Amino acid sequence: MFQPNEKFMRLAIEKAREGIKAGQTPFGACIVKDDKVICTEHNVVWDTTDITAHGEVNAIRVACKKMDAIDLTGCQIYSTCEPCPMCFSAIHWAKIDTIIFGASIQDASDAGFNELYINNQQMKEIGKSPLTIIPNFMQDECIELFSEWGSQLDKKAY
Amino acid sequence: MFQPNEKFMRLAIEKAREGIKAGQTPFGACIVKDDKVICTEHNVVWDTTDITAHGEVNAIRVACKKMDAIDLTGCQIYSTCEPCPMCFSAIHWAKIDTIIFGASIQDASDAGFNELYINNQQMKEIGKSPLTIIPNFMQDECIELFSEWGSQLDKKAY
Repeated sequence: MFQPNEKFMRLAIEKAREGIKAGQTPFGACIVKDDKVICTEHNVVWDTTDITAHGEVNAIRVACKKMDAIDLTGCQIYSTCEPCPMCFSAIHWAKIDTIIFGASIQDASDAGFNELYINNQQMKEIGKSPLTIIPNFMQDECIELFSEWGSQLDKKAY
Repeated sequence: MFQPNEKFMRLAIEKAREGIKAGQTPFGACIVKDDKVICTEHNVVWDTTDITAHGEVNAIRVACKKMDAIDLTGCQIYSTCEPCPMCFSAIHWAKIDTIIFGASIQDASDAGFNELYINNQQMKEIGKSPLTIIPNFMQDECIELFSEWGSQLDKKAY
């Protein structure tokens, strides 16, 4: 059975932290294949004036370019926060095998972020997606990112 | 009450047709504000090697750039097909007011496209989205796009 690796989630966390310092919202994602990192990206919504540029969508776009493929079969994605339904669906379309996430959508909502209240398990069940979901991995460290972001004086929510 | 305008759906249909001719899948979308077209785009997944580049996501990105804003409040989106959950959520995040779609997810599935089986009404209700949804507008003309695409000898599904 697949065992998530702390090393890759730590990369996602560090990337989210880079994003916070760069004025972005606190979300990072790392795409891995055969224990090798394909890419690690953070949310760039403000940076690129693109409301769809969440961390996971951004990582998928970069991975598609790097692998010159729209099919990311055999990859896993580590995300500091449970993917929103947009990101979950993008992960499904990319045929990524497994989502490993830290904080939950509820944690993000509790920290003041706007959310669509559909969790990944619901998306999987209703949508009939084969994706494997590993929730709450290094959850406390991932939740901590929200307060790091919250303590920035120049933070911009959306 | 908002009344959808055939003119804008026709632009989306024509754009989907351009996409078919350019080797893309048969999906088009038109974003409108105050009865003026912001942009009309088609799916560019193959063209850009980006699995997230569905017609609606692509149109939202272009509209964000054109309006230099991540908030598209006051806009409507006309889509030849019911947005998938990724696109529905992107439309929600962009704060677009209204989705007007032609063919349904079920119609697309019947035509052989892979789908996540969550329709827009479910996304709205479970996710608690304020989006207004106008389904089945010019549905027959939009479904016709699937057979136009299907008759291309060099069509590429994904």
